[in-house]
Amino acid sequence: MSKVKVRTPFFETSTKNYIYGDDVLEFAKACDAASQKHDIDVLFIAPYTEIRRIREQCPNLIILAPYMDTLQPGRGMADVLPEAVKAAGADGVVINHVERPMTLSAIRKTIDRAKELEMLTFVCADTVEEAMAVAQFKPDIINPEPSELIGSGQASDMSFVAETIKAVKSVDPDIMVEQAAGITTAQQIYDFIMAGSAAAGSASGILSSDDPYGLLDDMVAAVKRAKEDLARGGE
Amino acid sequence: MSKVKVRTPFFETSTKNYIYGDDVLEFAKACDAASQKHDIDVLFIAPYTEIRRIREQCPNLIILAPYMDTLQPGRGMADVLPEAVKAAGADGVVINHVERPMTLSAIRKTIDRAKELEMLTFVCADTVEEAMAVAQFKPDIINPEPSELIGSGQASDMSFVAETIKAVKSVDPDIMVEQAAGITTAQQIYDFIMAGSAAAGSASGILSSDDPYGLLDDMVAAVKRAKEDLARGGE
Amino acid sequence: MSKVKVRTPFFETSTKNYIYGDDVLEFAKACDAASQKHDIDVLFIAPYTEIRRIREQCPNLIILAPYMDTLQPGRGMADVLPEAVKAAGADGVVINHVERPMTLSAIRKTIDRAKELEMLTFVCADTVEEAMAVAQFKPDIINPEPSELIGSGQASDMSFVAETIKAVKSVDPDIMVEQAAGITTAQQIYDFIMAGSAAAGSASGILSSDDPYGLLDDMVAAVKRAKEDLARGGE
Amino acid sequence: MSKVKVRTPFFETSTKNYIYGDDVLEFAKACDAASQKHDIDVLFIAPYTEIRRIREQCPNLIILAPYMDTLQPGRGMADVLPEAVKAAGADGVVINHVERPMTLSAIRKTIDRAKELEMLTFVCADTVEEAMAVAQFKPDIINPEPSELIGSGQASDMSFVAETIKAVKSVDPDIMVEQAAGITTAQQIYDFIMAGSAAAGSASGILSSDDPYGLLDDMVAAVKRAKEDLARGGE
Repeated sequence: MSKVKVRTPFFETSTKNYIYGDDVLEFAKACDAASQKHDIDVLFIAPYTEIRRIREQCPNLIILAPYMDTLQPGRGMADVLPEAVKAAGADGVVINHVERPMTLSAIRKTIDRAKELEMLTFVCADTVEEAMAVAQFKPDIINPEPSELIGSGQASDMSFVAETIKAVKSVDPDIMVEQAAGITTAQQIYDFIMAGSAAAGSASGILSSDDPYGLLDDMVAAVKRAKEDLARGGE
Repeated sequence: MSKVKVRTPFFETSTKNYIYGDDVLEFAKACDAASQKHDIDVLFIAPYTEIRRIREQCPNLIILAPYMDTLQPGRGMADVLPEAVKAAGADGVVINHVERPMTLSAIRKTIDRAKELEMLTFVCADTVEEAMAVAQFKPDIINPEPSELIGSGQASDMSFVAETIKAVKSVDPDIMVEQAAGITTAQQIYDFIMAGSAAAGSASGILSSDDPYGLLDDMVAAVKRAKEDLARGGE
Repeated sequence: MSKVKVRTPFFETSTKNYIYGDDVLEFAKACDAASQKHDIDVLFIAPYTEIRRIREQCPNLIILAPYMDTLQPGRGMADVLPEAVKAAGADGVVINHVERPMTLSAIRKTIDRAKELEMLTFVCADTVEEAMAVAQFKPDIINPEPSELIGSGQASDMSFVAETIKAVKSVDPDIMVEQAAGITTAQQIYDFIMAGSAAAGSASGILSSDDPYGLLDDMVAAVKRAKEDLARGGE
Repeated sequence: MSKVKVRTPFFETSTKNYIYGDDVLEFAKACDAASQKHDIDVLFIAPYTEIRRIREQCPNLIILAPYMDTLQPGRGMADVLPEAVKAAGADGVVINHVERPMTLSAIRKTIDRAKELEMLTFVCADTVEEAMAVAQFKPDIINPEPSELIGSGQASDMSFVAETIKAVKSVDPDIMVEQAAGITTAQQIYDFIMAGSAAAGSASGILSSDDPYGLLDDMVAAVKRAKEDLARGGE
């Protein structure tokens, strides 16, 4: 479906609106460098205004828009046209982030619209049941994030991780399950990948750390290390 | 307040979502050229994804974002941060467009937030009463657009034009009043400016014409001609 | 969960906002009479303002509120408090009707809130996939209504009926599946029940007919007839 | 316009969603009794589900719905039809309460719809500028409530009271201005009326007091006392 093939395990991050303008580009470049250095795919959720510039300067990143509408080209002054974010360089789109909840039908239609444009679909869900619900629409990636953990510095526990992976896979084994809520350390990234997650991510955790660039690199390195340890069949 | 000083009469246009990507840039460049050629300010409402590129390549345009939220830097995954659109190059923002209606308080707060960032405020209103209502918040520009005319190819009549100008000026004589609903010809542009409008604009009218670039140039020329005729004290 | 036990097959109807005030009560009384006459459960979706009066005068009806919020008692001036609709006499609530689409999380939370109050949950879905999605939250009833059919006078075809029943039952066999989109005749009611639906319903179809009361009675009678034919093992 | 003539000064109250069911009726009856006892008009904002019952049992109250939509009779499953709340007994409607913010156009259309049905319009505004903005639509009553004060137990200061009255009257001297934010004592009620308010109100303040019924009666008595003192030309 999606034009971009994501290699697992991968890392995902975002600047949300903590920073803006050149600071976003600078952070994206660091992500791009870490992706290249560790040979790990990095999904980067970029503000609409920065998508094109990041696309031009960060060839390794898989770029996601934080949201899009489902309109077709035409009216809709302030709507986010799928074709527009794709033309700017987005490889995919975030759907139903807890800071931008969507109706059930809008979730379904956005996934359909993204598939039509061969864009990657990354859908957020609040609970195990929500994860299973959105799995019915066969997105590429599901990110189950208990909303009370987001930005809290407190991560999901391992039983939630295991349960969501099992639940989503029971609906559709092809869907990749990522964990991202409340992650603040590279060790958590490693542990979540080792526990079977296709990916792990962090946004607030990195941006509020004392050394964001260092932590970013450590986290991507942790994905790499987990990948190798898994390949080795071990722990 | 606004960093950019808009010279009246001016012209305003937008691509809405009729076109996207490189087509938007190409159209913006034509607007930029017409602005320079006729020495008339052109306000260009650009999709978020194209703001930065247009800013870099179209030095004459006054660029507006089609909407923005009022959050401060921080969380808000898919929100449009005022600082972000400004950093990308937007000189101002459209508020309460009929295709993106806003609550009364959000209108007020967005105007306040824009002033804080020295951004130009361009507020839409459906009726004379709505125009007077939003005038209380002292935006730079008010665009009274009877919603049933937008995209209809049928323009406001002269009595509506005269009435809205008088009404807005009675609240605050410094507010510029633009007419843009349903305009499809350069003659309408000329007539509306001669009738006292600070500006006139067209979006659908241009983009659905057989010769958009020709019509665009004619319209900006019409603003220029009206400006000169008004200076000459004539009609 | 729900205090009220619904006997299948049942009939469901609503006045939406086609009529109001005493006309709603009069129609509810006719539904109540048909329910008693044919010994068939009738679910009646009532405007908030009429719930209490209908509860008092129509003892046979199972009354549903058309929507409710999830707030706890407290602030929320215009919110619909679950405890308030229950206290007024509602036995259950409609969730995610196509004319009131809800976010995925709101659907889940409303179902949880209704269960807490032992209220019946009746959830609408646009497609087979949406039906399977909301089935994850284990509501009592799912009503798959292709939105393009609602109020159209054109009903779902039998393959959609069979497919949705099978799909929902594959997630949770206890969920009752109703068909209601575009039904205008008693024969359709009969056919949909015979095809395995737990229920069938009609709103616009009845209210826009020449003889609403006659049609209503015929439809409830059709449910009864289908029930008997099914009991007889026949088709 | 409005069928009901409100006599000033009046008192306004509401149960919001702090209580529900029979408790609302009981409180409404106390308001009705206080209205009769002190010969002061009391506006009572009632949950949709209780409007009819209160109308039947509380002849002295002027009843307001907490919100309504602007649809005409027809579809709109969960919408609040103006004709329906009127038929249930509402004399008027609250518009743009801070807990239910409305778009500028919806505010205008709801006022128009209410006037069409001869319903009283009670519009909330966050600031002096918002009060002047909504005054353009000529509602019967404006309630300027700084949103940070609502439910806070901290009332508006006298300069805000004087300023809002002057501001609204400068737009339209016929509009009644009420103060209600954060009022918790009968003395505040008295002071606000003496300062020129057409009315004063309290909801959270009463419902969270130790003796709601006593405080309610004191507040209505305070309106009466202020009325008499004003008639006497005194202060």
